[in-house]
Amino acid sequence: MSRDPIYLDHNATTPLLPAVVDAMLPYLREHFGNPSSTHPYGARARHAVARAREQVAALIGCDAEEVIFTSGGTEASNLAVRGVTAALEESRRHVVTTSIEHPATARPCDWLERHGYRVTRIGVDGDGRARVDMAREVIHGHTALVTVMHSNNETGVLQPVAELAHLAHSVRAVVHTDAAQSLGKVPVQVRELDVDLLSIAGHKVYAPKGVGALYVRRGTPLVPVVLGASHERGLRPGTENVASIVGLGAACELVGRDLETTAARLRALRDLFRDRLSGGVPGLVLNGHRELRLPNTLNVRFPRASGSAVLEGAPEVAASTGAACHEGHESASAVILAMGVPPTEALGSVRLTLGRGTTEEDVVRAAEALVGAWRRLVGA
Amino acid sequence: MSRDPIYLDHNATTPLLPAVVDAMLPYLREHFGNPSSTHPYGARARHAVARAREQVAALIGCDAEEVIFTSGGTEASNLAVRGVTAALEESRRHVVTTSIEHPATARPCDWLERHGYRVTRIGVDGDGRARVDMAREVIHGHTALVTVMHSNNETGVLQPVAELAHLAHSVRAVVHTDAAQSLGKVPVQVRELDVDLLSIAGHKVYAPKGVGALYVRRGTPLVPVVLGASHERGLRPGTENVASIVGLGAACELVGRDLETTAARLRALRDLFRDRLSGGVPGLVLNGHRELRLPNTLNVRFPRASGSAVLEGAPEVAASTGAACHEGHESASAVILAMGVPPTEALGSVRLTLGRGTTEEDVVRAAEALVGAWRRLVGA
Repeated sequence: MSRDPIYLDHNATTPLLPAVVDAMLPYLREHFGNPSSTHPYGARARHAVARAREQVAALIGCDAEEVIFTSGGTEASNLAVRGVTAALEESRRHVVTTSIEHPATARPCDWLERHGYRVTRIGVDGDGRARVDMAREVIHGHTALVTVMHSNNETGVLQPVAELAHLAHSVRAVVHTDAAQSLGKVPVQVRELDVDLLSIAGHKVYAPKGVGALYVRRGTPLVPVVLGASHERGLRPGTENVASIVGLGAACELVGRDLETTAARLRALRDLFRDRLSGGVPGLVLNGHRELRLPNTLNVRFPRASGSAVLEGAPEVAASTGAACHEGHESASAVILAMGVPPTEALGSVRLTLGRGTTEEDVVRAAEALVGAWRRLVGA
Repeated sequence: MSRDPIYLDHNATTPLLPAVVDAMLPYLREHFGNPSSTHPYGARARHAVARAREQVAALIGCDAEEVIFTSGGTEASNLAVRGVTAALEESRRHVVTTSIEHPATARPCDWLERHGYRVTRIGVDGDGRARVDMAREVIHGHTALVTVMHSNNETGVLQPVAELAHLAHSVRAVVHTDAAQSLGKVPVQVRELDVDLLSIAGHKVYAPKGVGALYVRRGTPLVPVVLGASHERGLRPGTENVASIVGLGAACELVGRDLETTAARLRALRDLFRDRLSGGVPGLVLNGHRELRLPNTLNVRFPRASGSAVLEGAPEVAASTGAACHEGHESASAVILAMGVPPTEALGSVRLTLGRGTTEEDVVRAAEALVGAWRRLVGA
C-alpha cells in the first residue's frame, strides 16, 4: 500500500477500525440467524442487535429503545423529515431548515415543498453558521419541523442546534439534526442538544457503509417511510443488518472511549497542517468559523487556482473539493457560496479531513505536495 | 457448534457462503473508499460495485445498468411499488396484486389504497397459485402496476408471473415481481418472465443482510422513494454499501454456477424428508402445489397439533411456522388460510426449508425429531 495517496478524505468515508471488523466477523460467519426467528440462531442475532443498540445509545446519551437502525444516514434523515411531517396534524405544514443541508435532508424538504408544505431555508453567516436571528423570525405555531445539521460536511462548522431547538420547542415543533459528520469527532448528546431526532451514518464513524441509525426521542410523532413488516418498533422494516449493526455498535463504543484525546490530537495536527499551508501559500483563506468546527476538518481556499487543479497536481493526497462537475463545467460548492464567498474564490476550495490514522508525517507531506502543486499552477 | 439445532429455516435467512465472506473482507479492510470519490480509494470501490452489478445482472439475464442496489428486498419492493405509481400519470390509479404477498409489497399497496389508489388483491387457488382468471377480469386500461411475488415465502409455490405479465402488458401496465425467495433456487430470467421490475434480497441467497437490488428494465417509469444525492442513477441515494454489494455479486455468481444440480439435490432431500414425515405422521398434508414450488421448501400441516407445539417439542430442529403470535393468541398463517385451509387445520403448519449445507443426515434426524414430537403431543 506504499503507493497509496495520503488519505485526507475522512468526511467522505472512514476506514473501519480493525476491532470493528473483528466484532462483525462472527455475524458474517457462524451467527447468521434472522433476529425475527424464535430458534437459537435467531436469539443470538437478536441479542447482538440489542447490545449494539445499547452501545449507540451510550454514545449519544439516550435509552436503547430510542435508537432505530436504518441503512445509513440518508435513510435516517428521510425517516426523520418525512416521517414527522406525515405523522403531524394537517395544521402544521411548515418546515424550517438551512441553506447548507446535506442532500439527505435537503431533498426530502424539496419534496415536501412540492407536496403542500412551505419550507423556509435560513441562511448562514460569513463563518458558515446558520443564522439564529433569521430562524427566530420564521419559526411559528404552524411549524412542524426544524431540521438543521449538527456540523457541515464541507466546512465542519458546528451549527447552533441547541439554540434552534429552543426556538422550535417554544412553538411545539419537532427538532431533527443530522449528526452524521459530528458523531465520534465531538461530543453529541441528545439531551443537551434537546433534539427529538438525530441521524447517524455508520461509515462516517469507522463502522461499515450501509448502516445508520435514527435517534427518536420517546413520544416523538413519527410514521415509517419505507413500509413492510414490523421491525424496529414498526418504524423501519426489513431484516436487520446484523453484522453491520454490530459493527456500528462496536465503533460507537470505541470512538466514545477516547473522544476528547483523539479530538485534541487531530485538532493539533489540523492546525499544523494549516500553518504549513499558510506558510507556503500567501493569501490562503480558511473557510468557516475558526473555532466552532470539527477538529478534523480543514477547508481552505487557494488563491488564483481552482481546488480541483491543486488536487490534480498533488496526486500524493486523496482529498476532495466540494465542487460539483456538470458536463465538464465546474461549479463552486453551494455551501461555500452560501457563506457569501465570490464564485471565483470559492472554486479555490479544498476540503482536507483528518482521521484517527492520520499522522504528523502525513500532514507535513501533504502540505508540501499541495503547496508545490499550487506553486506550479500559479507560477510562484 | 454440535449442540446447535439442525437449521431448516433457509427461507428466513441463509448463512453466507465462505467465499462470499472472503470476497467481502478486502472491502471491509483495506479498500474502504467511497465510490463517489475521485481519488484511487474511490475508484477501487467504484470498480468493485460495477463488477458486482455485472454479477447480479448475469444471474437474472439483464444488463448491468438495469440493476439498482438497495438496502434489501423490502426497500427494493417499496421502490418498485411506490416508485412506479408516483411516476405514472394520474389516470393510472389502479394496482393489482395478490392476497399472499410479503409485507414488503403488501404494505406499500395498502398505503396506496389510503392515498387515492384502488388496489385489487387477487386470490389463490387451493394449491396456493394466484388466480390468473381473476386477474384477467380486473386488469384494465387504468391499471398502473401488477405486482406478484415470484414464489411464496411460506409455501414456496411458484406464481404465474409470466402469464400475469402478459395480461398486464396488453394494457401497458408495469409489472413487478418480488423474487427474493426464488433467486438462487430456481432459474429467474427477467426477459423470459417479461417483468419490468424484480426485487432481490441478499440474505436469502447466501449474501449478507442489509443489501438487495431492484432490476429496472430500461425505460420503466420510476422515481426514487428515499431522497438524497444522485447515487444509483438517481433512483437510490446513500453511499453504496460496497462490501455487502460485493458479497451479493459474489453470491449471485456462485449460486448461478450450480443452480440446477443444487436444486436437484435439495429437491431429492426435501422429498425424502416428506416421505419420512408422512411415514410417521398419518394424515400429514402438504401445503401448496406438489410440483410448482421451490425445490428447498416443504410446508406441511400436522393433524391434531399446532405447528408451534410440534417445533417446541423438537428443539433439535430450527424451523418456523407461518403463524403470528398476538398477545399470546396464535393466529394461523394468512398465506395458508388464503388457500382455503380451515383455521384449525392451518395452525398445524410447519415450514421446513433446506439450504446448500443441508445433508441427508440432517433431514433424517429432523424427521425423527418432528415425528417424535408430534406423537408425544397427540398420544400416538
